[in-house]
Amino acid sequence: MAVKTDIEIAQEAKMLDIRKVAAKAGITNEDDLELYGKYKAKISDEAAKALEKNEDGKLILVTAINPTPAGEGKTTISIGLTEALCHMGKNAVAALREPSLGPCFGIKGGAAGGGYAQVVPMEDLNLHFTGDFHAITSANNLLAAMLDNHIHQGNALRIDTKRVVWKRCVDMNDRELRNIIIGMGGKADGIMREDHFIITVASEIMGVLCLANDMKDLKARLGKMIVAYNVDGDPVTADDIQATGSMAVLLKDALKPNMVQTLENTPVLVHGGPFANIAHGCNSVRATKLALKIADYAVTEAGFGADLGAEKFFDIKCRLSGLKPAAAVIVATVRALKYNGGVPKDELGQENMEALKKGIANLDKHIENIKKYGVPVVVTLNAFITDTQEEYEFIKKHCEEQGCEFALAKVWEKGGEGGVELAEKVLKAVEKPSEFKPLYKDEASLEEKIETVAKEIYGADGITYSDAAKKELKHIEEMGFGNLPVCMAKTQYSLSDNPKLLGRPENFTINVREVYINAGAGFVVVLTGKVLTMPGLPKKPAAYGIDFDEENNKIVGLF
Amino acid sequence: MAVKTDIEIAQEAKMLDIRKVAAKAGITNEDDLELYGKYKAKISDEAAKALEKNEDGKLILVTAINPTPAGEGKTTISIGLTEALCHMGKNAVAALREPSLGPCFGIKGGAAGGGYAQVVPMEDLNLHFTGDFHAITSANNLLAAMLDNHIHQGNALRIDTKRVVWKRCVDMNDRELRNIIIGMGGKADGIMREDHFIITVASEIMGVLCLANDMKDLKARLGKMIVAYNVDGDPVTADDIQATGSMAVLLKDALKPNMVQTLENTPVLVHGGPFANIAHGCNSVRATKLALKIADYAVTEAGFGADLGAEKFFDIKCRLSGLKPAAAVIVATVRALKYNGGVPKDELGQENMEALKKGIANLDKHIENIKKYGVPVVVTLNAFITDTQEEYEFIKKHCEEQGCEFALAKVWEKGGEGGVELAEKVLKAVEKPSEFKPLYKDEASLEEKIETVAKEIYGADGITYSDAAKKELKHIEEMGFGNLPVCMAKTQYSLSDNPKLLGRPENFTINVREVYINAGAGFVVVLTGKVLTMPGLPKKPAAYGIDFDEENNKIVGLF
Repeated sequence: MAVKTDIEIAQEAKMLDIRKVAAKAGITNEDDLELYGKYKAKISDEAAKALEKNEDGKLILVTAINPTPAGEGKTTISIGLTEALCHMGKNAVAALREPSLGPCFGIKGGAAGGGYAQVVPMEDLNLHFTGDFHAITSANNLLAAMLDNHIHQGNALRIDTKRVVWKRCVDMNDRELRNIIIGMGGKADGIMREDHFIITVASEIMGVLCLANDMKDLKARLGKMIVAYNVDGDPVTADDIQATGSMAVLLKDALKPNMVQTLENTPVLVHGGPFANIAHGCNSVRATKLALKIADYAVTEAGFGADLGAEKFFDIKCRLSGLKPAAAVIVATVRALKYNGGVPKDELGQENMEALKKGIANLDKHIENIKKYGVPVVVTLNAFITDTQEEYEFIKKHCEEQGCEFALAKVWEKGGEGGVELAEKVLKAVEKPSEFKPLYKDEASLEEKIETVAKEIYGADGITYSDAAKKELKHIEEMGFGNLPVCMAKTQYSLSDNPKLLGRPENFTINVREVYINAGAGFVVVLTGKVLTMPGLPKKPAAYGIDFDEENNKIVGLF
Repeated sequence: MAVKTDIEIAQEAKMLDIRKVAAKAGITNEDDLELYGKYKAKISDEAAKALEKNEDGKLILVTAINPTPAGEGKTTISIGLTEALCHMGKNAVAALREPSLGPCFGIKGGAAGGGYAQVVPMEDLNLHFTGDFHAITSANNLLAAMLDNHIHQGNALRIDTKRVVWKRCVDMNDRELRNIIIGMGGKADGIMREDHFIITVASEIMGVLCLANDMKDLKARLGKMIVAYNVDGDPVTADDIQATGSMAVLLKDALKPNMVQTLENTPVLVHGGPFANIAHGCNSVRATKLALKIADYAVTEAGFGADLGAEKFFDIKCRLSGLKPAAAVIVATVRALKYNGGVPKDELGQENMEALKKGIANLDKHIENIKKYGVPVVVTLNAFITDTQEEYEFIKKHCEEQGCEFALAKVWEKGGEGGVELAEKVLKAVEKPSEFKPLYKDEASLEEKIETVAKEIYGADGITYSDAAKKELKHIEEMGFGNLPVCMAKTQYSLSDNPKLLGRPENFTINVREVYINAGAGFVVVLTGKVLTMPGLPKKPAAYGIDFDEENNKIVGLF
């Protein structure tokens, strides 16, 4: 029997009217929903406010070992775990990131889970959804146009055109726009300068939207964003450009969390999706807080492996918003652990206990790391058809020896039913006392913060800084931003800054190449390598296979 | 008493749930609507199909004299006339264009009517609305990215990088992007070449969307769009780039007409908004056809004055879609007629019968023109506080001498009630036999078509062509597109191609500078002057005054 593709499974889903899904989450008044078709809704500000009186549920973070080409399925597990909890009669809601449109046409498929643990309608989620990212693109590009217009119309703020740091954006994989010259042509066509487009999810506005508590906070953060430096070297902000109000107007609906459902009609909030390297890689604070108000168990996830995702979830998102996680689930696969043990990609289907024993060191480090935050850990394996019982037994025993709960998850194949074991372990873990605290104090210097993350989380021996990074760290502290957390941009494939060092690397240093401030989002970005903020399309883009089948009124080829 | 602003009036509106508005239009099944919040909905394809069995209502075009700084209020009249017909118990629906987002932050205010003849929710209409324009932007830029990716990945189609005609777009006034160099940086960053951004409404995809009958037609048109020429000079299309299916997927919802309401809760379809110079300037064919199916009277409008708007409505939109207008309303104001008679802008408040007698020649020419299409004409004046009775009497008598119905419209001040006189005249006009026929035959040569429009409609003595235009007309006919209609891009301020020649200019020639083919939309664009397809922001952009008032949960400063 041919295995069904994700889109085929998704298109066969019996979706419930989103009003009925919302009612499951206790939102029974239709006026509290802003419907976007039958299966998507935004939760109104009034409803969110009315729910604030509720007790908070338990917050469960889903994170993972370092990503490998073998795949881990963090989103699949997040959705499956939520389905499983609901399957057991618990009141659970997932809070997840919105996928970006552009990459769907490149290599990567969509990001709405997989198999029988998917969020639907998956086509809408992966395409325009409720327009949040389009709103961010518009606000980002309005600010850029107003900034250049200010320079063109006389430059009263004395902006140094060589130090414009605000970039235009587009939600598309378009390498041609990475490095461009704008403002060519005649005098009426603006000021000529070098510029760069980034993909929308890399816009600071995405970080701002995801960290804002409400409209007032959103405006304050937008206004503080640094867009350029003047000829004296002082920062110029979006407030100085007088763009804050208009950006807020463009973002007024984007600020409201979106509700959709799993294949099993479980409510899911999907809202915001910042990069997990140059930004903090988590869904919005508003969606997570709302999930805690409407459910006893709120399942959320963070981008990439735990060294990037969980660290930022704890040290940036939880620190800035006051969220307190009750447990963390680390997702691994047998294949990915073997890959970490040195097995090449095309041999991962064979049992290999030696490689597994070696590769599991990667998982161990992530378990240790999460314990440093005082959060109980559950390890889960996203089951795959080539896995063997012996491999499972080994991993289970290993985890139990570390004092972790362990569960095999078959949610890809079976949906919620396949996640009951995991859900049971999670319910056990959240009853343990969580003594969550971030890793470092606000008052530590930026260098101390970087060092703490590098040594404690990555396992580095030390740090080196480029001269430029050293200088800019000093400058950022002089500007008064030394109390902000750091947002580390590092390869996701290794605990080190070298993507080739798998497993649990030792005796390495982290090399800081560049730092810059995101004063609106509220963190200092620390680059340890080159980060591409505008992807390109491959030789045969996924777009070649995507089509609308008008006879059967459905999308084909999206995955 | 202070006169209320449009946004103040709009925000005081008692809007009906859009389901109730749709029910007025005979769409009573909620499943036929795709709701976007409480006050906006898309009409499903199934509903549109089911309505096809209905008899067509009467199609009424609202057009105008040449625009002046004094303003005419074509959209206000279109909305007011629809309100008036409903006020009289008739079943009427308006089909209008969607405003563009970018210009709202520049000089121009929104475009949702004025006073008590507005479409609401006006803020949504002027901002993201239902995301149609964002979808067009995405599809446009996906095609651009795939085109450049094709070149970057080996250029199997042998595209001449000096002859890429497809431009990227953004829905923002951003002069910096008019002329740019893309693909700088290293080898991985694409091919370096000159490029240009246009504003989204200028994308050929907007024209395609507005002229497509259904998804199949949309795909056929998208696929035919010429994006570049190869080194042999042969056209390269979107089909060749393999982008058609993905663009169609991005546009699947944008293709469905949107329903909103007037301040008097009358249903209005708002869908599509192409430029009125380099494109045909009308709302979508689908919205107009749907309006005819759900109402006895469908009121629609066309951009700019009748020389551009009505001509293209008749010769492009009606020709390509088979629509047959039953009457045309020409909107004028006393002030605009005096302006056409040579009165400076700041003296328009004074009675000036001499200037009026002179300026009315502009109106006369438009009346004559519309009669050439065999369509009954009604002239209406959009009343203004400084108008005098004597001025009204003169215009009324003058129109009646031309054999036209005439009515004064006070819809700005009074809504539908102020448009009853106009509505009565329109009801009379549509009972006259309409012998609509386009101005020229498909088989005429492109030069004959241009000459016919220039002489018959503009009143020109003759035409001159640049060498390049002459050559390209020949090339377009050689490529097999000689049977398409022409889409004239000319200043909107004059019947001639010189914006300073007001009234009814004589003894002038039309100078064709450039022509190009829009093979997907299905017309040949003829430029008689420089057309700016990317506006800029003024010294003090409207954005400075726009804000979100979080205390009162409303937008301020949008107009």
